[in-house]
Amino acid sequence: MVHTPVNIILLEPEELSPSGEVRLRDDRARHMVRVLEVEPSHTVRIGLVDGPPGLGTVIAVSPDAVTLLCVFDAETPERPRVDLLLALPRPKVIRRLWAQLAALGVGRVMLTNAERVERNYFDTHFLSPAIYRPLLIEGLQQARDTRVPLVSIHRQFRGLVEDGLERMSDAATRVVAHPGSEASVSGRLKSAPTGTAPTANRVLLAIGPEGGWNEFELGLLEARGFQRVAMGRRILRSDTACVALLTLVHDALA
Amino acid sequence: MVHTPVNIILLEPEELSPSGEVRLRDDRARHMVRVLEVEPSHTVRIGLVDGPPGLGTVIAVSPDAVTLLCVFDAETPERPRVDLLLALPRPKVIRRLWAQLAALGVGRVMLTNAERVERNYFDTHFLSPAIYRPLLIEGLQQARDTRVPLVSIHRQFRGLVEDGLERMSDAATRVVAHPGSEASVSGRLKSAPTGTAPTANRVLLAIGPEGGWNEFELGLLEARGFQRVAMGRRILRSDTACVALLTLVHDALA
Repeated sequence: MVHTPVNIILLEPEELSPSGEVRLRDDRARHMVRVLEVEPSHTVRIGLVDGPPGLGTVIAVSPDAVTLLCVFDAETPERPRVDLLLALPRPKVIRRLWAQLAALGVGRVMLTNAERVERNYFDTHFLSPAIYRPLLIEGLQQARDTRVPLVSIHRQFRGLVEDGLERMSDAATRVVAHPGSEASVSGRLKSAPTGTAPTANRVLLAIGPEGGWNEFELGLLEARGFQRVAMGRRILRSDTACVALLTLVHDALA
Repeated sequence: MVHTPVNIILLEPEELSPSGEVRLRDDRARHMVRVLEVEPSHTVRIGLVDGPPGLGTVIAVSPDAVTLLCVFDAETPERPRVDLLLALPRPKVIRRLWAQLAALGVGRVMLTNAERVERNYFDTHFLSPAIYRPLLIEGLQQARDTRVPLVSIHRQFRGLVEDGLERMSDAATRVVAHPGSEASVSGRLKSAPTGTAPTANRVLLAIGPEGGWNEFELGLLEARGFQRVAMGRRILRSDTACVALLTLVHDALA
């Protein structure tokens, strides 16, 4: 694991006492003691998971525990404006993607089957919330966000695309990454329907497996309003492609 | 290591016989036998390292070796239009970056010291060509490119910036990533000098350490023509930031 810097300390609501205190003994405490070198009366940037950011005032420090008095006085950040429909990559790739997806900002991640996804990829423990949620939190603590991406896993691509997408993502604009397409991400998104208010302008981005979507899958996506986009002639590994495409979509929405 | 797909098989000039044959017994042979399932008379996409792409015709196959007759009839691709000045990240990060940098396309990588770079990062074996060159080749074989990034390592940031940069990079436009800057990458690059021919329009991108450049370093870079750019309010891990920023620069140059 690459060590990931912590730029906000995230707290689960149930960790707080009724008076707003929390006593931490885990990696978060170690970060405050060793990296931030906190002492009583210092403040640290904190956030409530899926809630507002705020400030924690250190009220006690020991080598293995830190007690904070928490005030959450800022606005809860808006959900990231990109949802991701991602053909499930191999286990090592999804493991390293979780924190990066959360750091880049994704509202929902739908992991799906596709012809070129190997069936046994669905057996990995990296798809269990007990494993991926801490990785998502790690990415948010890096990026200084509080909104945890929603995650769903779909073994039936067709069922998801034909029956589930509307419930899963309210994004008005849908694009599918497909090498060789004429349109760039920014070209597509800047020609999006102009009647849409910018704040309502969310994007659902579909990224296929190594080897790409097959024609049937592309057809289903296009029948549901996805428009093809490409990213130049280079062929990227799926984790690199995810980071690159999410970056371009966020940039086009900014 | 994440398995990286091979979309072009790269050959070193000295591997070829005078008649243009090559007998491979390594991972490239295994890829052709197991993934491509080649048989005599099949052709595979090949390229000469730092030279032209072409086609290899299979003339013999055994379980552990493949012999190709090689013809290089395409044009050598242009050098990627981005050079990178990167504060040396921690060893695990640079290890995973090598292939991604080559896949995204970088003309030259200058790894440099900075105040917030730990000195012992320079001791890693991931800075030895015997380790990083195969990783660069892996990235090129993924991205279907032949141009190996030039690599140089600089323990003196000031000496590099004040005396070495002009020799290292002919990029007309210089940008430095710095969180909080007003300008976006595309904003900066689209306002670049208009007298420049598009093909001459190369960019030198400087990316700091976790924690950022210090004010002295930023000052030196700005004195040498670097303009600040930022990428929204999220703070990214340095490998994610590298992929994201290189993507934005390539997109702005496309």
